[in-house]
Amino acid sequence: MHFADRLTAAIKKKNSAICVGLDPQLPKLPGFLLAKMKAEHGPTLKAAANAYVEFNKGIIDAVKDLVPAVKPQLAFYEELGHEGMWAFEETCRYARAAGLLVIADGKRNDIGSTAEAYARGFLGKVELFGENKAVQEVDALTVNAYLGLDGISPFIKVCDEEGKGIFVLVKTSNPSSGDVQDRVIADEKMSISELMGHFVESWGSDSLGECGYSSVGAVVGATFPAQAAKLRKIMPTSIFLVPGYGSQGGSAEDVRPCFNEDGSGALVVNARGIIFAFAKDGGVGAGENFADAARSA
Amino acid sequence: MHFADRLTAAIKKKNSAICVGLDPQLPKLPGFLLAKMKAEHGPTLKAAANAYVEFNKGIIDAVKDLVPAVKPQLAFYEELGHEGMWAFEETCRYARAAGLLVIADGKRNDIGSTAEAYARGFLGKVELFGENKAVQEVDALTVNAYLGLDGISPFIKVCDEEGKGIFVLVKTSNPSSGDVQDRVIADEKMSISELMGHFVESWGSDSLGECGYSSVGAVVGATFPAQAAKLRKIMPTSIFLVPGYGSQGGSAEDVRPCFNEDGSGALVVNARGIIFAFAKDGGVGAGENFADAARSA
Repeated sequence: MHFADRLTAAIKKKNSAICVGLDPQLPKLPGFLLAKMKAEHGPTLKAAANAYVEFNKGIIDAVKDLVPAVKPQLAFYEELGHEGMWAFEETCRYARAAGLLVIADGKRNDIGSTAEAYARGFLGKVELFGENKAVQEVDALTVNAYLGLDGISPFIKVCDEEGKGIFVLVKTSNPSSGDVQDRVIADEKMSISELMGHFVESWGSDSLGECGYSSVGAVVGATFPAQAAKLRKIMPTSIFLVPGYGSQGGSAEDVRPCFNEDGSGALVVNARGIIFAFAKDGGVGAGENFADAARSA
Repeated sequence: MHFADRLTAAIKKKNSAICVGLDPQLPKLPGFLLAKMKAEHGPTLKAAANAYVEFNKGIIDAVKDLVPAVKPQLAFYEELGHEGMWAFEETCRYARAAGLLVIADGKRNDIGSTAEAYARGFLGKVELFGENKAVQEVDALTVNAYLGLDGISPFIKVCDEEGKGIFVLVKTSNPSSGDVQDRVIADEKMSISELMGHFVESWGSDSLGECGYSSVGAVVGATFPAQAAKLRKIMPTSIFLVPGYGSQGGSAEDVRPCFNEDGSGALVVNARGIIFAFAKDGGVGAGENFADAARSA
C-alpha cells in the first residue's frame, strides 16, 4: 500500500499528527535502566544498546495508541557502532509490530549505486545469496538532495516498488539553515529552499497515493512559519515532516502553516519533550516512571 | 597529530595521492569467497558481512604500501544492517593497523546534539558508563552542509580535539550535481558550490596544520575540471577529496586542477577500477586473484 495512504490513514485513526522522536541518549536515560544493563552486560556498548531497546519499548508501549508514527534518529544509534544499529533494528521491528509507522531520520544522500544501496538497505530488499531480504523495518527515510535528482531517483524507485516514502530536507529548523537554504537564486528569483520545494513537488508527481499526497515528503521546520506557508503552496501534494516544535522554539501556532487548509498534510515531530518527560520538574531520579511520563506528555 | 599533517605525510611517504574506495557489493564479490562464507554461516547477512571483511582485508594487504588512504562507503555496509556495520568496523580497524588512513564516506548531516552524536561516534569518543570510548577507527568523515554552520561546527570541534578531519560536499561528480550546486546566487554573483567553498575555507581557517592545510576538506568531483580550478582558488588551504576519476569519466588531466600548483592538496578516489579489477577482461570466474588484480590496477 502507498506510504502516503498508510500515513494519512494512521493520522486519521489516531486522530493525531504527532510523530514521537526516538532519540535515546545514554546520559539522559533513566538510571535504573542503565544500572540493570550494566549489571547484565558490563560497561559495554552492548549494555548501552540494550538500554536503548528497553527504553524505546517502554516509550512505544506508552504512545502506540496515541500517535501514528515514531522517528528514530539514526545518529544516536550509530554512535554505539554495530551494537547501536542492532538497537535501531530492534526498535523499528517493535514499533511496527505495535502498529506504528517508522520514519528513519538518517538524512542520507549519495548517487548512483551508492544511493541504490541506501534505498535497498533502508526501504527495499537486498539480494542475499539469491533471495530478496528486507533488512530494515522502516516505512520512510529522511534524505538530503544537495546532490540533485541523481541522489533521489534511486529512493523514489524503491518507494514506488515497496510502498515506502522519503522526506527531502527543504527548510530545516536550525538557526543557520539560511546559510545555504535562504540564498536567492538570480535566475529564478526564489530561494534555494523554494527551489528544493519545486523539485520535491515535481519528483513526487508520479507517485501520488489515493489520498492525494505523494511518497516524496518534505522536511520543513516549525521555526520559520512564514517560509513554511510559502513552501506549503509550492508543495500542495507533499507531506511535511515538521521538526523544531517545542525544544527548538516552534509553537503550536508556528506549525499551523505546515498543514493544508483541510488540516491534513503534516506530521509534527516531538522528541525530547516526550521521551525525556520523566526528567522534568527535577525528577531526574531513577526514572522508573519514564513511560507514564511520556504518555502524559 | 593534526589530520592534514598525517594525510600529507602519508601522501609523501607513499608517493601517491590515490585513495582506494572500499565499496564491496555482494553480487560483485569473488564467487569463491561468497561460497566459503555461505558454507560457514548459511545464506545470511552475517555470511555477507564476513565476505566483505575478507575481501577488504585482501585489498588492504595488496595496496597498503602503495596508497595513503582508503575510503569505505558506508552505504554498502549499512545495506547489511548491523552485521554490515560490524564489517565496516572490522575493515577500518584492519586498515588503520596496516598504516592506512581511513576516510568514512557517509555524507552525514544534522544539527545540534544529533550532529554531536555523529561526530562523537565516528571521529571522537562516546561516554560509556563513565569511561570515554572510541567506537570507530576512522580518521575523517564526509559531511553534507546543506544545513549550514550548525551542522558542521560539532564536527570541527571533535576534529580539533582528536586530530580528525571532515570533507564537506562542495561540487559533486554526478551529472545532476548542478541542480542545486550550480545555481547562481543573486547577491553574491557566485554559485552555491562556490559559496560552499568560501564556507569551507572559512570554517577551516582556525584549524590549520603545520602543512598549511586545514582539517576541513572539500569533496570536489573530477568531472567538472573548470569548476574545480575555480574552487581550488577559493579554498587554497583545503584538501580536496576527488571522486569521479575513472568509472565516472574523469581523466588524469581532469583531476589536475584539484591540486595546488606545488602538486599537493588533493586525494583522488579510485574504487571500482581497483577493487573489482579481477573481473575485467571477462575474468569474472571465481576471482581468487582479486587482491593481485587490485595491486596491479
